[in-house]
Amino acid sequence: MHLLRLTKRDGRALILYARGPLPDTLEAPSPGTTHVTPNSHLRWHPLRGEWVAYASHRQNRTFLPPPEYNPLAPTTDPAHPTEVPAGPWDVAVFENLFPTLTPLAHDPPELIVPTRPGRGACEVVVFTQDPSTSLGRLPLDHVRLLVDVWAQRYEELGAREDVQYVFPFENRGVEVGVTLHHPHGQIYAYPFVPPVAARELAEQRAHYERHGRGLLADHLRAEITHGPQRILYQGRHAIALVPVCARYPYEVWVAPLRAAASLADLTDAERDDVARALKIVLLKYDGLWQRPFPYIMVFHQAPTDGMPHPEAHAHVELYPAYRMQDRLKYLAGSEVGAGVFTADTLPDDKAAELRAVEVTL
Amino acid sequence: MHLLRLTKRDGRALILYARGPLPDTLEAPSPGTTHVTPNSHLRWHPLRGEWVAYASHRQNRTFLPPPEYNPLAPTTDPAHPTEVPAGPWDVAVFENLFPTLTPLAHDPPELIVPTRPGRGACEVVVFTQDPSTSLGRLPLDHVRLLVDVWAQRYEELGAREDVQYVFPFENRGVEVGVTLHHPHGQIYAYPFVPPVAARELAEQRAHYERHGRGLLADHLRAEITHGPQRILYQGRHAIALVPVCARYPYEVWVAPLRAAASLADLTDAERDDVARALKIVLLKYDGLWQRPFPYIMVFHQAPTDGMPHPEAHAHVELYPAYRMQDRLKYLAGSEVGAGVFTADTLPDDKAAELRAVEVTL
Repeated sequence: MHLLRLTKRDGRALILYARGPLPDTLEAPSPGTTHVTPNSHLRWHPLRGEWVAYASHRQNRTFLPPPEYNPLAPTTDPAHPTEVPAGPWDVAVFENLFPTLTPLAHDPPELIVPTRPGRGACEVVVFTQDPSTSLGRLPLDHVRLLVDVWAQRYEELGAREDVQYVFPFENRGVEVGVTLHHPHGQIYAYPFVPPVAARELAEQRAHYERHGRGLLADHLRAEITHGPQRILYQGRHAIALVPVCARYPYEVWVAPLRAAASLADLTDAERDDVARALKIVLLKYDGLWQRPFPYIMVFHQAPTDGMPHPEAHAHVELYPAYRMQDRLKYLAGSEVGAGVFTADTLPDDKAAELRAVEVTL
Repeated sequence: MHLLRLTKRDGRALILYARGPLPDTLEAPSPGTTHVTPNSHLRWHPLRGEWVAYASHRQNRTFLPPPEYNPLAPTTDPAHPTEVPAGPWDVAVFENLFPTLTPLAHDPPELIVPTRPGRGACEVVVFTQDPSTSLGRLPLDHVRLLVDVWAQRYEELGAREDVQYVFPFENRGVEVGVTLHHPHGQIYAYPFVPPVAARELAEQRAHYERHGRGLLADHLRAEITHGPQRILYQGRHAIALVPVCARYPYEVWVAPLRAAASLADLTDAERDDVARALKIVLLKYDGLWQRPFPYIMVFHQAPTDGMPHPEAHAHVELYPAYRMQDRLKYLAGSEVGAGVFTADTLPDDKAAELRAVEVTL
């Protein structure tokens, strides 16, 4: 992996990644014409026992691009700079112009609940220069590069003192709120371990302390033995499957078979296989109804809080937006107000549909 | 409150409620022509440590009504029976024809994760006979009757051995997945304390043990003293406000000021004031943009698990679907994958918008 670090004129970092060498003559463009001074803060929600992030500067976006303007495409007209330069790069990562979390956050308001600065990072990950493709359609060695990029961001962001959890994700499709169609994801680096991760880690820790083995590794072994009909891909080092306890229709987990704590802990061979598993799942998704399949993809890894996490087993969870070809899965009263997911279909049936989709890498 | 218990020919219960007397000559219609034998089961999600409900019979709905048919309107043509009879009732509650949870659930599959029958109840609450109105536009004494109905269902369902948590809610608007526009809500009666409620109760319990007072009551006192600009209504016994830690834009809590464990524990005067607070909020919602305002409304009350719950303080939480007039609030990566809500606006600003909406009861 080749890497070039640049700084935009407004101070934001840009990192370019490539499979081949990068000329060090590349410059970092920036679409902003005004100086942005992001600030944000966190408020403690006493009933839920969790932090809520407020970034009210995000509503004051002064930057109004022309309709055809794509800020994630390489800059071709210097009069209309985008977020990334022209050049032989494959993946670009830059700091979000309007971050929810930022190292610059300061002076949170004093309120009736505890508050703190919204420290951390919000990065945009441009998956490719090509605005018309998708993560799943990228060549395998390009997806493999992305695994390296996510791993590198985990290490670098996780090493920061204000970051306890590095969280890459992709929102794909207008159905999940995306307005920018250029293939891209995001990385949030939180100054605390977020509640969903904390819950998963607590369950994993309890299992590890009781059995001396990883919860997810044990679960994957059971799936392989007793649920082969839900497996979408099984390689030497990675697996993709519809879990027996899927909450979303077509929910898929992608994981290394070994209980590695993060993508950064994976060997080259393991990264190869995770990239392959991920690409296969995404191609099956798009092949199911012969159209782009909207989803939210999230990475769960070990916290970067300075504590040992032998219980953590890095994995990817994919939450599709649809439950049938023309029916969205809505999160309604039971899901959001009680936390109980209700499914109309069985994981075996959804897995069978996805297994039937043939894909070529 | 007058109440009449009926049984549909398919065995499902129907209860009619009214402010005036109900003739005991009313009969319970049922639209179903085939006998339904619902079954469902729960699977344990080991990573999240929570139950997921599967009701695959819900996809085999044999009942296909004509397009203009409204199953929640009173039956006028005996050839096309609906779920409720004609008659002088104000509110009707019946067992969902395709329940996610049912007292009949049996023989869950044996899987690699723990399973159990999907015991409990799923009830439909028809708010009124008038298909063209809404909960907020009902007369105050009608909303007040509904508080009594929710309280009565809490007591009756909560007394069942297979029910540990009674959860009334309303999904309003196509934006949150509603396809039936007749004003109605639902009640799920879970055989366990669901995760969101469990989390809130744990936080309340810790506060109660430390301070000997309720967490929510203390919080409401602080809001009254330091956050009057977020209060939408304050009466002698109830309050409605945008909480300082709102996760959703325009999120509102409605609560009795006293730490009552459930609606059933409220005095008549408290029920009056809760009904008034709720109606005011809903009228403000609809008045904000002069159009029906979609939301999810959920009730959090004490579990009915046979344990004492001095920590529990019943309240209503309203989660709106929009963050601006033409922008939906999407739950994306950070919210669903990490559990961290990110807000672009401050609760004070959203409260100011709602406070500016004038309503008449």
